Amino acid sequence: MPSDRILVIGGGPAGLEAARAAAEIGTPVTILEERDRLGGAPDSASYSTVTLDDRPAGEILEQARRAVESHDLIETRLQTRLTAFAGEVGDFRATVAGPDGATATVECGSVIVATGFQHFDPGRETQAYGYYEYEDVITLVDAERMFSQGKFVRPSTGEPPRQVCFIQCVGSRDRRIGNEYCSKVCCGISSKQAIEVRELVPDCRVFIFYIDMRMYGFWENKIYWVAQEQHKVNYVRGIVTEIIKKGDQLVVKGEDTTMGRPMEVPMDVVVLAVGMEPSPGTRAVASLLGVAQEKHGFIEPAGGAFDTVSTSVPGIFVAGAAAGPKDLDDTISMAGAAAMKAVAAVRRLALTH
Amino acid sequence: MPSDRILVIGGGPAGLEAARAAAEIGTPVTILEERDRLGGAPDSASYSTVTLDDRPAGEILEQARRAVESHDLIETRLQTRLTAFAGEVGDFRATVAGPDGATATVECGSVIVATGFQHFDPGRETQAYGYYEYEDVITLVDAERMFSQGKFVRPSTGEPPRQVCFIQCVGSRDRRIGNEYCSKVCCGISSKQAIEVRELVPDCRVFIFYIDMRMYGFWENKIYWVAQEQHKVNYVRGIVTEIIKKGDQLVVKGEDTTMGRPMEVPMDVVVLAVGMEPSPGTRAVASLLGVAQEKHGFIEPAGGAFDTVSTSVPGIFVAGAAAGPKDLDDTISMAGAAAMKAVAAVRRLALTH
Repeated sequence: MPSDRILVIGGGPAGLEAARAAAEIGTPVTILEERDRLGGAPDSASYSTVTLDDRPAGEILEQARRAVESHDLIETRLQTRLTAFAGEVGDFRATVAGPDGATATVECGSVIVATGFQHFDPGRETQAYGYYEYEDVITLVDAERMFSQGKFVRPSTGEPPRQVCFIQCVGSRDRRIGNEYCSKVCCGISSKQAIEVRELVPDCRVFIFYIDMRMYGFWENKIYWVAQEQHKVNYVRGIVTEIIKKGDQLVVKGEDTTMGRPMEVPMDVVVLAVGMEPSPGTRAVASLLGVAQEKHGFIEPAGGAFDTVSTSVPGIFVAGAAAGPKDLDDTISMAGAAAMKAVAAVRRLALTH
Repeated sequence: MPSDRILVIGGGPAGLEAARAAAEIGTPVTILEERDRLGGAPDSASYSTVTLDDRPAGEILEQARRAVESHDLIETRLQTRLTAFAGEVGDFRATVAGPDGATATVECGSVIVATGFQHFDPGRETQAYGYYEYEDVITLVDAERMFSQGKFVRPSTGEPPRQVCFIQCVGSRDRRIGNEYCSKVCCGISSKQAIEVRELVPDCRVFIFYIDMRMYGFWENKIYWVAQEQHKVNYVRGIVTEIIKKGDQLVVKGEDTTMGRPMEVPMDVVVLAVGMEPSPGTRAVASLLGVAQEKHGFIEPAGGAFDTVSTSVPGIFVAGAAAGPKDLDDTISMAGAAAMKAVAAVRRLALTH
């Protein structure tokens, strides 16, 4: 049976905004989320803030969640996964399995994949950084969780650190581990976090070791300059080759490529700026839907320069980091664009039948 | 009189895609363009290609133009400018002046501003680069025009160059000239052009002088790595302080900041990677509409992290580089998102009246 319903797979920022947008112009939506509540990575990883919005991330997410949960045209299915998929644009049938294991069929005319990314696991093939060996080597995600609790401490002691560094491009721009792309947001998030460390622990010296600071657009003047000028964050162009432990302190070894000399700097906390990889959900859903993926496993947009959201299968669209490294602006804009095309797809069919 | 028509101001990529998207789901659109044809900057500046789409830019634009011009629900007004604006969401009245100077009123329920950017004029306050003094100092725009004609030559002689360089961040990341932001796309476009130079003139050595190579996302592996590995483009982290002429050759002077030494390199052609500024149209339209602009004159999104397209005035939305430095993906995604919100705004009003 032809259906004008849109199935949105994934309840993070991309899915929330796509569902809201489609429902706002009168299209029924079913949104699937594998966790027990909506919110996606910013929620599951307890983001403290998101770049360039001053409000707490929790408040922003709560507003987006409420807009979806309170909308008459949106059916939310939590703890639910896609298990099978058939049909064609205008007349798809999705089999889904809910929390009790019971399956149901969702008839839908088009689909928006919003299954997002996962953070790179820095234990994998980057043992030199000692993430699983040293308690004081943490990731951006671990740091964000501390900021959400209004603190930044040295995990091994619970004390405020005196010297902290961020190491960029962990799991990105790296052929050896297979992630050749740049993860796009880590420079911005590290810089934002560096400011937060300086605010929470004013005596702490903060360093960012980087290859290129990719602070594009307004991130340049609104974050990068502010970090350097107002918060005295030290940006060092350099390559970190190893982190070792000397006594109770970490020592970061590498090369300062601007000064052209080796460096060996003691640190209380080292924050690894881990990049993005396709989430397991993105890989699984892409496979079930039969949409083409690029070589790293992200869903490949197939519409060319004037279409950021169409996939290789007519009637199936993608929004957000399921399609590659995206910042929140990319994700939200893509969600609106995907909703537009998904609505157009079901209406075109409705006119035909 | 309440109207469900959307007024799209500007016929470049953002305007074309916003108009197409809104009309596709049944909303009438009027699109204003001050030039005598649709296409915007990629058309007026004769772009050869756009990043990550192999087709000629002309072909991509022609397809977008046709989709708009052939749509029953889209009225296109060329050589037409907005001259006055009044009303409120659902019931705006735009006064427009056409090619013969005659004015007309367009009644519309919501507005999408897609008035774009202008390329930084490298004669302004950057005399050290000699754009207006030396024929062989050109901009990315001048280079693009040559690529569109299938050639790359030294302008002063018409001969193929032996040594060419690109200078990044001309008119961007520069407090002195007032453009503090990063223009986002110049690293990618320079790298794309460097590859084109190497393809057209295989004997030519090509250098890119940069501060940070902002090759985010898939630009890293799809352009940056390809430029270095397959096309032997030389990336040099450095600051260019001056361009002078010695005999019939240009000499680029500055500092190689990786090697920590002064450099003085002869060049046949120097390409200035000029950044983005708000177009005169963006400034004029923002003022007529009364929407808030950020300090550089771009239109300021006012909706927070989950809304990239709302402005300070209800019912008026922005898409593309009118809102700041944007790449084509940003622009196209924003166009879809803006169309979605503009349609929702007029339908919500239609339900109320």
